Amino acid sequence: MLNFVYYTPTKVVFGKGSEKETGKLIKEQGAKSVLIHYGSERVVKSGLIPEVERQLDELGIRHVKLGGVVANPHLGKVREGIELAKKNDVDFVLAVGGGSVIDSCKAICYGLADPDHDVWELFAHTRPAKACFPLGSILTIAAAGSEMSNSCVITNELTGEKRAYDDNLARPRFAVMNPEFTTTLPDYQTQSGCADIMMHTMERYFNNGGYMEITDALAEGLLRTVMKNAEILHKDPKNYEARAEVMWASSLAHNGLTGCGSDGGDWSVHLLEHEMGGMFNVTHGAGLAAIWSSWARYVMNDCLDRFVKYAVNVMGVEDSGDKQQVALEGIHKMEEFYHRIAMPINMRELGIEPTDRQIEEMADSCLRATGGGCGSARRLNRDDMITIYRKAR
Amino acid sequence: MLNFVYYTPTKVVFGKGSEKETGKLIKEQGAKSVLIHYGSERVVKSGLIPEVERQLDELGIRHVKLGGVVANPHLGKVREGIELAKKNDVDFVLAVGGGSVIDSCKAICYGLADPDHDVWELFAHTRPAKACFPLGSILTIAAAGSEMSNSCVITNELTGEKRAYDDNLARPRFAVMNPEFTTTLPDYQTQSGCADIMMHTMERYFNNGGYMEITDALAEGLLRTVMKNAEILHKDPKNYEARAEVMWASSLAHNGLTGCGSDGGDWSVHLLEHEMGGMFNVTHGAGLAAIWSSWARYVMNDCLDRFVKYAVNVMGVEDSGDKQQVALEGIHKMEEFYHRIAMPINMRELGIEPTDRQIEEMADSCLRATGGGCGSARRLNRDDMITIYRKAR
Repeated sequence: MLNFVYYTPTKVVFGKGSEKETGKLIKEQGAKSVLIHYGSERVVKSGLIPEVERQLDELGIRHVKLGGVVANPHLGKVREGIELAKKNDVDFVLAVGGGSVIDSCKAICYGLADPDHDVWELFAHTRPAKACFPLGSILTIAAAGSEMSNSCVITNELTGEKRAYDDNLARPRFAVMNPEFTTTLPDYQTQSGCADIMMHTMERYFNNGGYMEITDALAEGLLRTVMKNAEILHKDPKNYEARAEVMWASSLAHNGLTGCGSDGGDWSVHLLEHEMGGMFNVTHGAGLAAIWSSWARYVMNDCLDRFVKYAVNVMGVEDSGDKQQVALEGIHKMEEFYHRIAMPINMRELGIEPTDRQIEEMADSCLRATGGGCGSARRLNRDDMITIYRKAR
Repeated sequence: MLNFVYYTPTKVVFGKGSEKETGKLIKEQGAKSVLIHYGSERVVKSGLIPEVERQLDELGIRHVKLGGVVANPHLGKVREGIELAKKNDVDFVLAVGGGSVIDSCKAICYGLADPDHDVWELFAHTRPAKACFPLGSILTIAAAGSEMSNSCVITNELTGEKRAYDDNLARPRFAVMNPEFTTTLPDYQTQSGCADIMMHTMERYFNNGGYMEITDALAEGLLRTVMKNAEILHKDPKNYEARAEVMWASSLAHNGLTGCGSDGGDWSVHLLEHEMGGMFNVTHGAGLAAIWSSWARYVMNDCLDRFVKYAVNVMGVEDSGDKQQVALEGIHKMEEFYHRIAMPINMRELGIEPTDRQIEEMADSCLRATGGGCGSARRLNRDDMITIYRKAR
């Protein structure tokens, strides 16, 4: 095992009616003026945001709201949020939505804490953050895990660059998680969420750094639980218990728990997908599923023992002793699982057909984003990336 | 599943050399004057406390130290710590030791935050805490999980009462965890620690409230990992990897993770043991092991599905379909495990022989401590407690 730091200060208030605690949680943070940030108007029409506004009014806390965050959230909206928040002396930002909204909030909070610098510099990795305004969330989509994570991914809609910036400064102060809010999600979004949740832990699992048995045991248990409940939700989307299992898994899969003692993980699948998201605006989780098995078959011999362990402990493959065969069967069973929940296993099924030229552009952009390559299961160079993209077509 | 709050703000710095971060972590908390609190002089002679003092001197942070904390930590030492801290304008308390030292620190921090009231009132449950001074720890024993938990257990050495007070206010700010510090522990203490770690999760597992599949999966994975590594350490106490697995498990077993979605758990085994600890000053983890199987056989029919799940998923019992037989075999296998790591499975093996009168006294004291009974797997009254104590003799 490797040394690690584990830090998850986010207070989670989980279950039916938990949104009623929002005002109290914001007051605990000493907030005087809140930016309520969200995506679609669904959360206004459903009465959720009016309920939060009512709570804040009762507590004498000022508030202003800004909607319109899109999937693969835009830098332009972040800048709009920073300006609006400055005008209103905002000292706390509340996200109402999924990972895109929370990430947009995190970027706004970075911007507010350092108003003299352009916030995109963080995502271009030309400087680190020194501070971040406090934020919290009411989660309505189980997927990104941003509600407890240090991650933030923003797309520069002018250049098509989708870039991540990770920093503990942006760990949210609280997360209000009522699984009922996710029961109306379309199946495609639900299952994309499940694919994303699983991938956050799989990225950590497949690596050539250190391992801990306890971390593996937690990761494998989490993955088996998400798989089982994703299938339940595919047939029974209103199932509260299954929604709850998946929602709590979304936080645990990406708050650091399933990476303790490892080298941080591989993350190539995420990085390859970010380029697809930047170029084609695909749904993130579906994009991950579409590229995973091509990546897995390409790198598995460089990380064979981990693929065998995954096949046996997560996918239920019998350990015949033939490592190659067991690893391949595990990957194949994962593809079968993706198909059972109507997720794509290649780009055609995802609905995109990148040309050779576009694939080269994605690889070049990924190289720039990663400073020359990525991966721990196997370190990928430009040729590797192009090969994986092609195999995934 | 039931609604839950999950809150684990403690920053964990884990691994070899992590003690070198202590000064920096204390400085992050804005401390100006630190009480360094510990048990045996071993942590002074080993150079650990002098190293911390050197770091604090370098940072210009004042410090004073107080040793002498014993297992089942005494109220008298807590009072001594409060007085010493007041005299030195202490604004941060650092525990260097195991759960007893951390609990003594927590009680001191409660006392410092409310100097006008007697701190024992919290443990007598005649008032709740309003505040708590900040604390952190350098952990040297993996067992109690106090380094991340909201728990605090203090013994009033004048009355023999051992009482718990749980409050999120006392969650430590940081935990420095270097598994190397535990490699010199005697086997009895190591294995008592493993028994305690497992019991923190088992207490949550056996209940008649709500369940979450993901919580069960994490709990079962944690328990299997501790069992495996406890046996490794019984033969190879210097094994760093096994020490690390057990140390990280100690925190995860009691920080709330393995109870999410449940009714909070049973806790009768802990409460019954607290009376044994108060009367006979036994080692806590060994005391838990000594009473567990008597409790388990007595209550299993009131919580049979959970005992079956435990037997199959943790103890590896084949599910014959005969629930009673499977549950009993799980309990028996647990006793075999305790014996493999030289832990007692009854009071005789623990080295105590309470009289009938003493058993009645323990039951009466437990009734007082619990306000008339305890347990979720099965609610225990006075007669139940007496029966379990007698069966465990």
